[in-house]
Amino acid sequence: MTFVPKTHPRYLSLKIRDIVVNGADKGITSLHGLLAHGRGEAFDYFIGERTTAAARKAIRQAAFLLKEAEHPVISVNGNFAALCAKDIVRLARAAGARIEVNIFHSSREREKRIRGWLLKAGAAEVLMPQKGFKAKYIESNRKYVNRNGIYKADVVFVPLEDGDRTEALVKDGKKVITVDLNPMSRTAVKATVSIVDNIVRAMPLLLKELKKQLKPQDYDNHAVLRDSREIMSKRLLKIKNI
Amino acid sequence: MTFVPKTHPRYLSLKIRDIVVNGADKGITSLHGLLAHGRGEAFDYFIGERTTAAARKAIRQAAFLLKEAEHPVISVNGNFAALCAKDIVRLARAAGARIEVNIFHSSREREKRIRGWLLKAGAAEVLMPQKGFKAKYIESNRKYVNRNGIYKADVVFVPLEDGDRTEALVKDGKKVITVDLNPMSRTAVKATVSIVDNIVRAMPLLLKELKKQLKPQDYDNHAVLRDSREIMSKRLLKIKNI
Repeated sequence: MTFVPKTHPRYLSLKIRDIVVNGADKGITSLHGLLAHGRGEAFDYFIGERTTAAARKAIRQAAFLLKEAEHPVISVNGNFAALCAKDIVRLARAAGARIEVNIFHSSREREKRIRGWLLKAGAAEVLMPQKGFKAKYIESNRKYVNRNGIYKADVVFVPLEDGDRTEALVKDGKKVITVDLNPMSRTAVKATVSIVDNIVRAMPLLLKELKKQLKPQDYDNHAVLRDSREIMSKRLLKIKNI
Repeated sequence: MTFVPKTHPRYLSLKIRDIVVNGADKGITSLHGLLAHGRGEAFDYFIGERTTAAARKAIRQAAFLLKEAEHPVISVNGNFAALCAKDIVRLARAAGARIEVNIFHSSREREKRIRGWLLKAGAAEVLMPQKGFKAKYIESNRKYVNRNGIYKADVVFVPLEDGDRTEALVKDGKKVITVDLNPMSRTAVKATVSIVDNIVRAMPLLLKELKKQLKPQDYDNHAVLRDSREIMSKRLLKIKNI
């Protein structure tokens, strides 16, 4: 890890950055995943590197959907695994959800490494894509899913996701929860619930919510996205140096 | 390269992304460089993936400073080399500038690979950091510079730069020209001239300007940065889906 003193104003951001770079060195994160993380960092500056009220509302809704689900599934890619392995295991337990590996830049080897990484973090089971089972409306090699996982899921938690896949899962009648710092991404726009927050901040808050007695709330995902965009827009005029 | 049809709305951005990823595969770009490119992409969405009037003004000023310089130097890092090798060679010729390799995540091996890459692109000469010659006010191993390059330069062109180094070069009395899509970065704020644009768009425009008869203009770098921030802020409210 690059040495950065704890007093550095960007300490946490730089520490998270190193975790993702290490993930790439270990063959868990793809090189394109590093670029995606960089984009996220820029959006995180704009949102103020904190969890907004809009994000908290989305996190509550996500917890509610996961609790109500019959077959909740957590879809894990390289960045998510590198950043949150232990919290993924905790979330699977708290929500009674299954964990499934599904990556954008497909590689059987990397899928296996992600699986191993999650098992090492304490996962009891990690499902893998199966050649015989296809998710509907997806053309890329991401269409292959696990029959006991995404294939029959009613609620899918797919953070740091690509737009095509989110759209396909929603079109197939599944409820999709995402975590995406870009409130304008197709994923954020198409998902049922879009948590516009850093995944590292959002996961512990989601785990906390799952322990509560949850009731349905009025929820408008587009309002959540609009609020996030407004916060970013205002901050761009205020902050002159980051 | 990942297959992306030319009709894809993000074709150019995805093509540039692949060039940087290939740069990392070749050992020219660092893994941290990929993250930095991702941040740049996010800012490029906001600016509208086009060269603004503010950026054109900064490009004109950059061309003027390079022409007036006695010892102009082009400082090249991994991302800049991966994206613009041929334009770097053209710029060196057009501005009578020397090329020097200077990278953030230091590695002698990577420095040599960047040098080889630039020579292959047609550079007549590529200077390397020398252990005996230190730039003032820099603590990191980036302090080592070439005696015939940055050490005696009066104008340094350092795109995609880190804030500490920009600050140190300015403090040492040099004029610093940068290209940085983040108008709030320390580099953009501290540089003499900050071109808030994608380096791939800015380089051909800079080369064009250098062919013109240039006159001094009223130039306020802070106004350029403010204009860029305002454009981004407005677009954040307008665009709902990218």
